[in-house]
Amino acid sequence: MVNTLFLPELREMLAEDNSAELLEFCTALNAGRTAEFMEGLTEDEMWRVLQFAPPDRRVEIFGYFEEPRQVDLLQTQDAAEVAALIERMPSDDRVDLLQQVTPERFQAILPLLPAGDRRDIQRLRSYEEETAGALMTSEVAMLSESLNVRAALDELAKQASDLETIYYLYVVDDDSRLRGIVSTRQLVSSLRRPDRTLGDLMETDVVVAQVDEDQESVAEKVERYNLLAIPVVDQSHQLLGIITHDDVIDVVRDELTEDAQRIAAVAPLEQDYLRIALWTLSYKRGIWLIILFFAALLTAFALEHYHDEISKYVWLVSFIPLIISAGGNSGSQSATLVITALTAGEVELADWKKVLSREVIVSMVLGIFLATIGYATALFMAPTPLAAMVIPLTLVAVIIVGCFFGAALPMLFQRLGLDPAMMSNPFVAGIVDILGIVIYINIAQLMLG
Amino acid sequence: MVNTLFLPELREMLAEDNSAELLEFCTALNAGRTAEFMEGLTEDEMWRVLQFAPPDRRVEIFGYFEEPRQVDLLQTQDAAEVAALIERMPSDDRVDLLQQVTPERFQAILPLLPAGDRRDIQRLRSYEEETAGALMTSEVAMLSESLNVRAALDELAKQASDLETIYYLYVVDDDSRLRGIVSTRQLVSSLRRPDRTLGDLMETDVVVAQVDEDQESVAEKVERYNLLAIPVVDQSHQLLGIITHDDVIDVVRDELTEDAQRIAAVAPLEQDYLRIALWTLSYKRGIWLIILFFAALLTAFALEHYHDEISKYVWLVSFIPLIISAGGNSGSQSATLVITALTAGEVELADWKKVLSREVIVSMVLGIFLATIGYATALFMAPTPLAAMVIPLTLVAVIIVGCFFGAALPMLFQRLGLDPAMMSNPFVAGIVDILGIVIYINIAQLMLG
Repeated sequence: MVNTLFLPELREMLAEDNSAELLEFCTALNAGRTAEFMEGLTEDEMWRVLQFAPPDRRVEIFGYFEEPRQVDLLQTQDAAEVAALIERMPSDDRVDLLQQVTPERFQAILPLLPAGDRRDIQRLRSYEEETAGALMTSEVAMLSESLNVRAALDELAKQASDLETIYYLYVVDDDSRLRGIVSTRQLVSSLRRPDRTLGDLMETDVVVAQVDEDQESVAEKVERYNLLAIPVVDQSHQLLGIITHDDVIDVVRDELTEDAQRIAAVAPLEQDYLRIALWTLSYKRGIWLIILFFAALLTAFALEHYHDEISKYVWLVSFIPLIISAGGNSGSQSATLVITALTAGEVELADWKKVLSREVIVSMVLGIFLATIGYATALFMAPTPLAAMVIPLTLVAVIIVGCFFGAALPMLFQRLGLDPAMMSNPFVAGIVDILGIVIYINIAQLMLG
Repeated sequence: MVNTLFLPELREMLAEDNSAELLEFCTALNAGRTAEFMEGLTEDEMWRVLQFAPPDRRVEIFGYFEEPRQVDLLQTQDAAEVAALIERMPSDDRVDLLQQVTPERFQAILPLLPAGDRRDIQRLRSYEEETAGALMTSEVAMLSESLNVRAALDELAKQASDLETIYYLYVVDDDSRLRGIVSTRQLVSSLRRPDRTLGDLMETDVVVAQVDEDQESVAEKVERYNLLAIPVVDQSHQLLGIITHDDVIDVVRDELTEDAQRIAAVAPLEQDYLRIALWTLSYKRGIWLIILFFAALLTAFALEHYHDEISKYVWLVSFIPLIISAGGNSGSQSATLVITALTAGEVELADWKKVLSREVIVSMVLGIFLATIGYATALFMAPTPLAAMVIPLTLVAVIIVGCFFGAALPMLFQRLGLDPAMMSNPFVAGIVDILGIVIYINIAQLMLG
């Protein structure tokens, strides 16, 4: 829903080059809302409006545009103006965006930046994706432990506008190795004893992220310890940067969305659904569909094998989809519950016996219930009430098998160091489909033949 | 993984009543880690160790215990000690926990609390679950706009230890109506101009949550505007409390986990997988399994209807599971992608044409590919190469139908004001299964008969 409320006025102001009113527009509301009112403009218009805002405000408003638009603007607008904007952006955000412009464009912008920013960008670009290094910002308040409260506040006042967050102060030694942290809360609480030093105040047992640590593990720490930001260090405990809480929410969201997609047998998109190339989308879905397809082909061969039995009892055919889907649905329920419980840390591998025994009990309850309905239906189609018993017996067996494998495979894959969300569904579906057919025909042979 | 490293030492200290060492244990590490080292203790031991910590530290360590243990401790330990702890806990957390103790216990603890806390607890308990009111904490720094920077900092220093977060100051009028906010960052930046007032500094265009607003909508605002905390107001704009970023991460996590469970046709558990009663679990899975089962029953009746055709062409039976699962899998991929994209805001209802046309293109690509493999297999089982063509033609048609309904139904349900994640999967599965069978038999009749 694009907000078009101010578009005519904005265009008129632009036509008149009315800098006073455009400045007023850029500063009167909060930056997020200002950005929303600009969404309906063309990119050239957006960029022109931005130029009327004070530089810090410009960066702030720009930060609320949608990411693809941000990339387009950096790609197409005046290089000097773009460089001026990039210079003031948070260091993690600008690197993210610069990864997405063309290499030619990147090389055109880079020389226009001050040497310090250039080095910072090159350094952050060198960290591998999905690690702490790739998420962090290098703007961080590093102070010495000999500073007292009053001096620390003054120092902070000087730096505050350049830093992404000032909610922790990081105390470092001369080699910028992390010694401890002081929260702004502690600093403010100590205002009445302004001669205490940061060394007196600091907490030395600090939760840190290693620069090459996986982003999910970092997010877990931030969540577990309710941190606003986590410091990122290298092997020698040198402080390289911090990761802030808003980046962590993004990681949690991405991680869980990937889980949901993997559970449905789609390789994680890693891009917006509407923006991803159709070719890539086909590929990411195709690989799993093909694996699932081969699993289903096995059922075709199994059924072919029982060709003679089927010719004899054609009424059994009507129930094939029912039986397969009962097993598949209960299996995918179990798999999803176990996967989400593993992700949330509610279940650990050590709980496997408990999980499996719960699944078996639940599947018996569900199986007996569905079998009763199934039997009532089978009575209409089967030649005798005894023959109809094939259906409920098969249903109970297939649902137990579905729940058992649905719960067991994610834990097995986790145990083997594989992603439970990624691997389980196709295997659960494949195993349950084929076992379902085999169980069905064998129960039928036993009962009828 | 329970950390057992310090357990023998801790038990020895308890046996000796060694208050110096126990105090040292409670304060040397950060509170989260201290709590981890206590996990292996019995609840009585945990509680006794806690009593050696200074009161604020005690609350902090307690906050890192797992929630079920927290509830057990409040339920079973000495009521006076429990009340002393509750008095100092963040107001949102304590209400959450008190909702989970028995009513008798709640009535026993309540009279031991100061009148102010009692009223606060009663008020917060009155808000409906999953609303802003139920998430918020009522401890918030409310200041008057006439205060200058220096005085505001002094005031903050006084309040800092009682407040959950001090990263925004809330400026209110005499009736505690919200007038604006000042971030601690702005306050600190302005330290060199200490005579400016909060009224000069404050941002008046504030993003707020209404007290009865749904928690997902609140989380969306906090994410969109990268807030550390969002103020909660009532209809007259009176400031009632704030919701902090850590509670928002929990909401995002819960919301996405619920989505994943709904996609797999499980009613959201709302409890830990291992703690939920088996009866409840059976019920939450059973309702959807039964709906899915009735959908599958329709396929049984459809196949029964085509009894004569099946007797004539028994080789077609072998491919029934393959065709059903190809449609079901591609449909559930589409449904999951559209649901997660709707949740993430990447897709809006207005995009429906674009979504459906993308799905049709992708499904044709996938369909033709799978149909080729299917044809190669069918050649082995069908009487003639022409007869074998039934399989690839059906596969293409079923996969297109699967993707189309998989993408269309979540958007339709959203349009109707229903939760797309909850409703879609069973309907997609039901529709695709039955259409798959009908398409299959009709193509077979056309080609063979």
